[in-house]
Amino acid sequence: MNKKGLLVIVSGPSGAGKGTVVDILKNDSRFALSISVTTRAPRINETEGVNYFFRSEDEFKKMADNKEFLEYAIFCGNYYGTPISYVNQKLEEGKNVILEIEVQGALQVKEIFKEAILIFLTPPSINELKHRLENRATEPKDRIEMRLNRAKEEFDMMDKYDYIVINNEIEKASNDIKNIVYAEKMRANRNLYLKNILKGDEIKC
Amino acid sequence: MNKKGLLVIVSGPSGAGKGTVVDILKNDSRFALSISVTTRAPRINETEGVNYFFRSEDEFKKMADNKEFLEYAIFCGNYYGTPISYVNQKLEEGKNVILEIEVQGALQVKEIFKEAILIFLTPPSINELKHRLENRATEPKDRIEMRLNRAKEEFDMMDKYDYIVINNEIEKASNDIKNIVYAEKMRANRNLYLKNILKGDEIKC
Repeated sequence: MNKKGLLVIVSGPSGAGKGTVVDILKNDSRFALSISVTTRAPRINETEGVNYFFRSEDEFKKMADNKEFLEYAIFCGNYYGTPISYVNQKLEEGKNVILEIEVQGALQVKEIFKEAILIFLTPPSINELKHRLENRATEPKDRIEMRLNRAKEEFDMMDKYDYIVINNEIEKASNDIKNIVYAEKMRANRNLYLKNILKGDEIKC
Repeated sequence: MNKKGLLVIVSGPSGAGKGTVVDILKNDSRFALSISVTTRAPRINETEGVNYFFRSEDEFKKMADNKEFLEYAIFCGNYYGTPISYVNQKLEEGKNVILEIEVQGALQVKEIFKEAILIFLTPPSINELKHRLENRATEPKDRIEMRLNRAKEEFDMMDKYDYIVINNEIEKASNDIKNIVYAEKMRANRNLYLKNILKGDEIKC
């Protein structure tokens, strides 16, 4: 099978549990997290090339002009972007690169990077989502209501995704994602180079 | 997730090990073998509805006229066909129905039954295939040569398939197929009914 890694976009509504599931996945040596470029100042304990690539706003904008990002966005006055070069480097090393990203960004990345696997991670119901957001207890009621309405809109985007993973239990959800990636590696269109190998040399599995 | 089973077409060159791999899969209660209709007389120990559905040539032809087969063929003067009704019944029961079939027939079935999963099972190399066919010791040398040439043509059909599974070791190959089916069940386009459920009721997993 093709040794190159796959880009795995884990997306879905806020409160679906993307962060927790990705935390489990990144412990698997076959996976690597995508590292973002940011213009925000490093916090204590944050390391260049581990948590983020820290760049000035000028440097960031130059990268954006050169189309060096899969996607980028502004949040609280700081820029954040996914650098194509880092993603490609990890893919070439054979790692499956996980990109954890909200729904709009995910769909943009899929536009550029068509061979990416787009996974919609969802809570088992809107009630469970509400319950999770309320339990976080970090946000006022009207903001939770806004997130729930947005989630309902995001559910309508499901048909643009490749897979839907229901996050009822985080270990199962992360195994489901591993399973999807393993199966995707056997996709015929990712392995057509086998045609000629099969006629000749032995294949290393 | 959708409870309906999937039609899994296991295909590939003669000598790829389709029969052995399918023998393992059918021991899994989530899978059921497709049962063919035949005009051939039952052999001792063969049971109606277990090994085959035995029908007269007239009955068979009437079924063919009524388009009741996914595919059919004549072999040694007898007709063999895959009955759509039996496949559908098992799928409705939630079983993944395995259809073990040669390459041409597989591509025909996929034409009719687009949601089927088309798996190309392949030996790891043409040399291994040659070795396996020679070890069967059931066929003269020129017939083996013919099968090898046919296999080379069949390798060229790979891009019409959904997945390629390399049969280096039968347990691994059958697990790979189970894995593919499990992942396919999470495909977004097989689960779009979730859109509305997620907005309202709880999902049973």
